[in-house]
Amino acid sequence: MTTKVTKEEALEYHRVPNPGKVAIATTTRLETQRDLSLAYSPGVAYPCEEIQKNPELAYEYTSKRNLVAVISNGTAVLGLGNIGALASKPVMEGKSVLFKKFAAVDSFDIEVDETDIDKFCEIVKAISPTFGGINLEDIKAPECFEIERRLVEELEIPVMHDDQHGTAIITSAALMNAAEMMGKNISDMKVVVVGAGASAIACSTMYKELGVKNLIMCDSKGVIHKGRTDLNKYKKEFINKNDITTMNEAFKDADMVLGLSKPGTFTVEHIKLMSEEPIVFTLANPTPELFPEEIKAVKPKAIIGTGRSDYPNQVNNVLGFPFIFRGALDVQARTINMHMKKAAASAIANLAKEPITEELRASFGNLTYGREYIIPIPFDKRLMVEVSSAVAFGAVETGVARVKDFDLGKYREKLASMI
Amino acid sequence: MTTKVTKEEALEYHRVPNPGKVAIATTTRLETQRDLSLAYSPGVAYPCEEIQKNPELAYEYTSKRNLVAVISNGTAVLGLGNIGALASKPVMEGKSVLFKKFAAVDSFDIEVDETDIDKFCEIVKAISPTFGGINLEDIKAPECFEIERRLVEELEIPVMHDDQHGTAIITSAALMNAAEMMGKNISDMKVVVVGAGASAIACSTMYKELGVKNLIMCDSKGVIHKGRTDLNKYKKEFINKNDITTMNEAFKDADMVLGLSKPGTFTVEHIKLMSEEPIVFTLANPTPELFPEEIKAVKPKAIIGTGRSDYPNQVNNVLGFPFIFRGALDVQARTINMHMKKAAASAIANLAKEPITEELRASFGNLTYGREYIIPIPFDKRLMVEVSSAVAFGAVETGVARVKDFDLGKYREKLASMI
Repeated sequence: MTTKVTKEEALEYHRVPNPGKVAIATTTRLETQRDLSLAYSPGVAYPCEEIQKNPELAYEYTSKRNLVAVISNGTAVLGLGNIGALASKPVMEGKSVLFKKFAAVDSFDIEVDETDIDKFCEIVKAISPTFGGINLEDIKAPECFEIERRLVEELEIPVMHDDQHGTAIITSAALMNAAEMMGKNISDMKVVVVGAGASAIACSTMYKELGVKNLIMCDSKGVIHKGRTDLNKYKKEFINKNDITTMNEAFKDADMVLGLSKPGTFTVEHIKLMSEEPIVFTLANPTPELFPEEIKAVKPKAIIGTGRSDYPNQVNNVLGFPFIFRGALDVQARTINMHMKKAAASAIANLAKEPITEELRASFGNLTYGREYIIPIPFDKRLMVEVSSAVAFGAVETGVARVKDFDLGKYREKLASMI
Repeated sequence: MTTKVTKEEALEYHRVPNPGKVAIATTTRLETQRDLSLAYSPGVAYPCEEIQKNPELAYEYTSKRNLVAVISNGTAVLGLGNIGALASKPVMEGKSVLFKKFAAVDSFDIEVDETDIDKFCEIVKAISPTFGGINLEDIKAPECFEIERRLVEELEIPVMHDDQHGTAIITSAALMNAAEMMGKNISDMKVVVVGAGASAIACSTMYKELGVKNLIMCDSKGVIHKGRTDLNKYKKEFINKNDITTMNEAFKDADMVLGLSKPGTFTVEHIKLMSEEPIVFTLANPTPELFPEEIKAVKPKAIIGTGRSDYPNQVNNVLGFPFIFRGALDVQARTINMHMKKAAASAIANLAKEPITEELRASFGNLTYGREYIIPIPFDKRLMVEVSSAVAFGAVETGVARVKDFDLGKYREKLASMI
């Protein structure tokens, strides 16, 4: 989302008509004394007693069923770095807005002024009864890995750090489609990941799950290899098997490069070394590591993606997280596991192969499956049907859904009716 | 609010059309790619940077300005006792609904699964950047006193435990008007408080601030006096000065009794001992300590209040908290101090002396200031103008408002326009 906006416009947008972007709405009748007696004392005591007897009934009688917390401590906000909890609030409200707009998920933002891993986890666990799911956001690496791991393990509601898995799921969709276009097996592909932060680690983990065997990760000091003595345990997982130690070796005949770094970490000279039809994702924001024009000049057949809305194949997390949580909430999933994430990636990949709707054609032109349209665009409303149903079904398949008697057909109909 | 409702009706109200009573609404335009670029990346970075430079700007660019957390650990919920965090959620959502309905205050409910005072305070402090104010709710005594004291001291936003101060403010309004009707000075009145929990302690503290000198508090074991060896530090504050040790002595010629206990703690025999024109508040819910008919049979001139909507003078916290936080938020108050609470009580008291509106007359009959109408009814929309403006002005007077150039007249006009 890189449409140019000025500081003045952005500040006005956040100030007018009222400060902020979210508000509360009441969803029940509340006109008479009788309504008040149902919504509050004495009537409210009945659902309380029911939930006390059976905690699962919180999904029947409270907004927990449709409620996701967007939680951050403000330690790695956008490209701004560690700006603190309070200053991250506009971003977290924005995330809540996207949840509501794209998938009708209700979402509160919670800014947590705590950077210690133990304490942060204790706080999130303590407030977790409130929510049906937790979207962790903009928490710096490597703390984010341990925080997510613990919360996933200890809580019985879906917890997902979107900075990690959002990008992983969407670029996985692109990888699947690109492999098909190139007629290659994913397991034969050579993939270079430039960047070793939260999203790079998550992408690499997911690519391995998809079958990638030959993956070379690079951080700000170059290729991660066994000769390095400065690696944390997360990076160590990605020491490459072929003892590659230089960027040139890494890029030589590579089928894909995923840039999650900053401009300057690799150049067109590196791209030249790649295969004839490479997939090149330069996702640094707002300025990509390389612009599509630069890449095409040396590899005309490259499949290119960026984080920007003014180029084809925008890798935008909004393709994923609203619908992933929509599906997880709707089956009252206890977690979001790798099977569900893969199902989301496949659903995104498959939707790109479908002809676009007339409505989209009118606004965005004639997008056809191919190099310039390898993943859907964020405004494709069919994403909710496809991604949410895939995630919900994945939860049922893997036994992490609380809902019994899930009917995929009926659920898809319900999602379609919400569009 | 004691209109009779059945269990089935209450459960259906909480389940249909959707589980729960609150949802999120987005408040800004969100139709185009450009809108997304303002609401989220890259535009959202500008308000983040501004807030990082000057934290006060969170009130300009985020929903903090109008946002109150309703926070409970579920240890003392309604009359249900310690039902836990999750089971308290319907009540907390209900409170959020009342905030929105009565005073257009946005409010999230947060259920905190933590009973330890230190940890609970740490959690609330950590998440406090999110909010413009914190309404503590249904936390058991005596923990609630220490929790509120610490949070008030350590946070720079208003924190109020409504179970304590709501009842205190509203019964203080009644006490002021009753004293006037009886032609007595508050400082000459003898007041009996039956109950020694959170609200009883808060009421007694506030009555002393209003000038009450002769106050006798009773707990489940009878009168609190200096011979007792089983008193915690909060109750010790209310050892009576006249060495009264029996309930009969306590009620003898008393001008007021405040019941915050349960049926059976005092009887009509005690009421008989009181002055000829006593104020008798029997606030046990849903069954008061004594019903108005029983009281009137022995004291025809008594001024009687209950917690019920089916009798005159309903003591309902909704007369207070929505408007108190409305006023505190609107001047970005750093706290809600005793001066502001007294101002709220005076505003409530004074509104009862005004002729009721035609709209109210149509629904509720001809309410006229007197024994049967000593405090306003919850549906009196003028409460927002009167109470919120009094609280806001009180904050400005005592120097706890962040807002400069407060104009009381303009603020009252703004409140009137919101009705």
